[in-house]
Amino acid sequence: MARAPVRRRVDRAPAPGKQPLDQVADGRRRVVIEAVMPEVDGGRFPAKRTVGETVTVEADIFADGHDALAAILRHRHQSSPTWTETPMTPLVNDRWRAEFPVTELGSYVFTIEGWVDPFETWSRQLAKRVQAGQDIAVELEVGARMLEQAAAKANGAAADAARLTAVAKSLRGTAVPAIDGEVGRLMRRYTDRSLATVYAREVEVLVEAAKARFSTWYELFPRSVGKFPDVERLLPNIARMGFDVLYFPPIHPIGRTHRKGANNRPATSGEPGSPWAIGSEEGGHKAVSSDLGTLEDFRHLVQSAAKQGIDVALDIAFQCSPDHPYTREHPEWFKHRPDGSIQYAENPPKKYEDIYPFDFETEHWRELWQELLSIVLYWAEQGVRIFRVDNPHTKPFTFWEWLIGEVRRIHPDVVMLSEAFTRPKVMYRLAKAGFSQSYTYFAWRNTAYELYQYFTELAQPPIREFFRPNLWPNTPDILTEYLQTGGRPAFQARLILAATLGASYGIYGPAFELMENRAREQGSEEYLDSEKYQARKWNRDSPDSLRELVTIINRIRQENPALQTDRGLRFHPTENDQLLAYSKSTPDNANVILAVVNVDPHHVQRGMVNLPLEELGIERDRPYQAHELISGARYLWNGPRNFVEINPHSMPGQVFRFRRRVRSEHDFEYFL
Amino acid sequence: MARAPVRRRVDRAPAPGKQPLDQVADGRRRVVIEAVMPEVDGGRFPAKRTVGETVTVEADIFADGHDALAAILRHRHQSSPTWTETPMTPLVNDRWRAEFPVTELGSYVFTIEGWVDPFETWSRQLAKRVQAGQDIAVELEVGARMLEQAAAKANGAAADAARLTAVAKSLRGTAVPAIDGEVGRLMRRYTDRSLATVYAREVEVLVEAAKARFSTWYELFPRSVGKFPDVERLLPNIARMGFDVLYFPPIHPIGRTHRKGANNRPATSGEPGSPWAIGSEEGGHKAVSSDLGTLEDFRHLVQSAAKQGIDVALDIAFQCSPDHPYTREHPEWFKHRPDGSIQYAENPPKKYEDIYPFDFETEHWRELWQELLSIVLYWAEQGVRIFRVDNPHTKPFTFWEWLIGEVRRIHPDVVMLSEAFTRPKVMYRLAKAGFSQSYTYFAWRNTAYELYQYFTELAQPPIREFFRPNLWPNTPDILTEYLQTGGRPAFQARLILAATLGASYGIYGPAFELMENRAREQGSEEYLDSEKYQARKWNRDSPDSLRELVTIINRIRQENPALQTDRGLRFHPTENDQLLAYSKSTPDNANVILAVVNVDPHHVQRGMVNLPLEELGIERDRPYQAHELISGARYLWNGPRNFVEINPHSMPGQVFRFRRRVRSEHDFEYFL
Repeated sequence: MARAPVRRRVDRAPAPGKQPLDQVADGRRRVVIEAVMPEVDGGRFPAKRTVGETVTVEADIFADGHDALAAILRHRHQSSPTWTETPMTPLVNDRWRAEFPVTELGSYVFTIEGWVDPFETWSRQLAKRVQAGQDIAVELEVGARMLEQAAAKANGAAADAARLTAVAKSLRGTAVPAIDGEVGRLMRRYTDRSLATVYAREVEVLVEAAKARFSTWYELFPRSVGKFPDVERLLPNIARMGFDVLYFPPIHPIGRTHRKGANNRPATSGEPGSPWAIGSEEGGHKAVSSDLGTLEDFRHLVQSAAKQGIDVALDIAFQCSPDHPYTREHPEWFKHRPDGSIQYAENPPKKYEDIYPFDFETEHWRELWQELLSIVLYWAEQGVRIFRVDNPHTKPFTFWEWLIGEVRRIHPDVVMLSEAFTRPKVMYRLAKAGFSQSYTYFAWRNTAYELYQYFTELAQPPIREFFRPNLWPNTPDILTEYLQTGGRPAFQARLILAATLGASYGIYGPAFELMENRAREQGSEEYLDSEKYQARKWNRDSPDSLRELVTIINRIRQENPALQTDRGLRFHPTENDQLLAYSKSTPDNANVILAVVNVDPHHVQRGMVNLPLEELGIERDRPYQAHELISGARYLWNGPRNFVEINPHSMPGQVFRFRRRVRSEHDFEYFL
Repeated sequence: MARAPVRRRVDRAPAPGKQPLDQVADGRRRVVIEAVMPEVDGGRFPAKRTVGETVTVEADIFADGHDALAAILRHRHQSSPTWTETPMTPLVNDRWRAEFPVTELGSYVFTIEGWVDPFETWSRQLAKRVQAGQDIAVELEVGARMLEQAAAKANGAAADAARLTAVAKSLRGTAVPAIDGEVGRLMRRYTDRSLATVYAREVEVLVEAAKARFSTWYELFPRSVGKFPDVERLLPNIARMGFDVLYFPPIHPIGRTHRKGANNRPATSGEPGSPWAIGSEEGGHKAVSSDLGTLEDFRHLVQSAAKQGIDVALDIAFQCSPDHPYTREHPEWFKHRPDGSIQYAENPPKKYEDIYPFDFETEHWRELWQELLSIVLYWAEQGVRIFRVDNPHTKPFTFWEWLIGEVRRIHPDVVMLSEAFTRPKVMYRLAKAGFSQSYTYFAWRNTAYELYQYFTELAQPPIREFFRPNLWPNTPDILTEYLQTGGRPAFQARLILAATLGASYGIYGPAFELMENRAREQGSEEYLDSEKYQARKWNRDSPDSLRELVTIINRIRQENPALQTDRGLRFHPTENDQLLAYSKSTPDNANVILAVVNVDPHHVQRGMVNLPLEELGIERDRPYQAHELISGARYLWNGPRNFVEINPHSMPGQVFRFRRRVRSEHDFEYFL
């Protein structure tokens, strides 16, 4: 497919004040276009959407004086040479808006064109003159001439030209002008746009696969299950729980040198090591560990999962064990110490001698980049479309921007999750560089106020335009104090929060649903007997499992479009610091979900939830039904303030769907 | 003076992801520089300062991983080819800061360079290794090699090279490394910056004359005084009141066709007409009305004013009376109606037949622009450096950007005030286009909350970087309802507010100080017997005059640097909606002013002023002196909450200067 190039450069003439007059392109362009949204860092990075979404574009558009203006939004997919034009509508305070749908993967670009509209100006003023009873003879002649000019431009469209000429004639003949909407539309069609202002940039919108927006992740260590065929037998189980992404830690051969054993002690014979210590004599990043099976087994698993609606996601961890073939074949990709050894990973005084990081400052960075790209492409060729990237914040941003761009050029449906547990600006920059989704600070935001603050930040422009959170209550690295000490209610609350605050969330299982909460030591977030260093046998059928709640919550997500996007989130006051209330709604309010979560895992909490009924599309003066989707209970609510009481020991959260009453001829009460 | 050109273009390579690898300039540049301040619209417009101010530059600077970074701010005046480098200091959350002073008129540019600092990284890590008791032999060798590399770069600076080599040697020889601050500084000097990131833009800072920041305006109609020599005799009076800008409405010959008479009725014989109906057989925008005197009289007045510290400001009103020479010599600069007549100004159904606007859409716009520029330059050659521009929002933004740039290229000390009483975004855009100051909505912000909101908006970045408010309680067009109905307290309150909220303010006198409050009709903001259409005789020596208060207030402004800038404004709660309290302070808190104004002109109001003592540099535990500068009264205050009671009929506002106690050896209490 031939692609028209996406231009991100700012094509802007030098400021007019600083150049000779004969270099001012045309001083008669009077319209200004600024404060365009969505736009990330002045157009340096694309805004993001997924297939099927809408791009709402807004801009400040104005000119000197009081003339009427017109503006259009222009957009095209990068593969199309032709622009689609959409008229923009003025809001208040010189703000204009229009929108366009995105239906294909890849990049769209849009820009804006605005101009002074003399005919519309004339029409508006004429109405005022007529109303004031002024002599309008000369004004009618002014209008007639504009119509005739437009008619002259309409050559080739004889009917249009004839219509315009006829109107011109009528203006000269009668005192009461007959200017209807149809004439206005014709005039806009043949309007002179030679002095129009075109916005300085073509703004890029990157369109990704739907799973970049809405995805439900389950992480497991395959070796704890057995081999790939054993994992394959578990797929129906995972699908039934409602997950659509199954993510594995690295599946490659594991190094032997400085191998880690149980609880991060040096390995003893027979211990399997950490999957992130990638590479041995068996092979490196493009090999499958024989402990898990063959490449063929893996491909079979991927295909079988796809049939059940599950994407298998692989871990991209760009680092090597000391036994990785790269260390022999490409020593130039590593940093060497004065004693000739390769520099291992460290965070002094801590040493990670089982891991060699790549040296991204090597002079051979081009070859290194190409090889790392080839790893992602290799797995994409095996059918993998979702990747979780380990510690991306320890590799250059420029590298990721290039790599993700290259992967996307070949596989525009690839989704990349950034494991950037690092400083806020680094996390955001990785998202700008191209990661589809990112881990967040969610795990450590446990009070209602912290959650309110953090998710309010994420919903602000421009952050919401490039950063898609993926919420994990736990990971193999993170067993929070809240989960360690809060018992069953803590796990339930964090599940409900993750699944309803975020359109994408995930759990590391079966540790999560079996409520594993034993830390290696006090004050640590590491799991005791962590699967990072050893296989674990889990009793998936334990009667204590949260599997049933997970299944219900994921079904609620599946059935309610409001929960499938991070747009439309609003927080609501509860008059109780321990109760967090928030709603998510589709733009048309056809689907409105309210979640109320008691973040105190120990005590019953009561409060009044205050809802902005009008914003949620609920009639103020009639009762409405709040259908609690976890329990199935239905409540009749009335007005904006409603009482809730949540006992964490029965269920720490409630998820309501609002149903409006529909009147029948008998005035029975039905709820949609 | 040869000037190095100011480049405003964005020199940015296409995003790396979208180009072949061999076009990525250098993938090893790891540092990211973003969110730079001050920067207006992504560098499209300059930030503004005045001579003697400081530019504080901040940016987000970070890299992948955990290495130590270094960053410098580079700046130069446009006339200088060489950059000055200032090290930047990290704050929190990856934010860095540095500053530079601006001492010359014209444009400065700055940019930022950041790099990974391996020696600093090594030093920090070494300290941790030593503390953990690790074997550091190999690490010392790593350091020694870095030192030797730097020594090799220091060729030509033998002492530096020797010092570095000596330290390298000591590292190899002893277990305890001797790395002091001096070595760090040397290493920074010879650091390898070949992989440094330079910020994508050179950001412009426009430096104007001090009066662009701090100015005190007095507007009068010369014809009400008499001729220019009569006005000249009034100068000592105006200087004594503390004004440093004397602004005249247009001084040019006035047209006769459709001339306006008293109270905007058609003129009868002998009436002088509106000064804004510029041009007659006598001449146009470069002529002086013979009713006021000669050009020589005017020049004499300008020079005499300058000797008394007063700039004479002229009105630039780019429009013509029907009798203006341009209408005959350049009919192509005007819009013509089908009947052959020139289109007069109108806002249908209102007609302003005494005014012809220029047609900025004329094909001859280049000649028109040049002629209009020549008008400003003509008056600049007569010694005028301050211009108040009439209705700039009815001429294209591009035109102003070009014109002001051209004027400034020849006269960098020119100050331009924009009379843009229009929509907010238009007002701001004119400021971006180059106007030094702007009229504001101040006249219509009369409640405490409105004032708090509006001045909080103006203090936000980026607005504060390009928009300098000039506050007018009245103008010949604006006699607000508040002044019409509020009596003497209303005039006093508005004077105190304008003079202390804004570093620049002005009054239209003697109407203001004589408290003229009669409107032409109810619901109108027009003055009865407005000087726009007739000369008025004023009794400047009336005992009721506010002249004394004006003099005191202007002296307070002169004596307190905090009031001479729009930076440093803070609002403080008063527990009373009618009391507005705010402070202005210099960055070092050496000068702290608190104003408390009762905006209710009718009733006594009481409240508690709550001050953030620490931010204002006041010790919490000791009393401090609040010296009320209008009355001269001194109060001993204690702690953050202090009672105020303001009777508008004695004085509706209080202006305090805080004086801290200085302890002497006898512990007497002195206040500075």
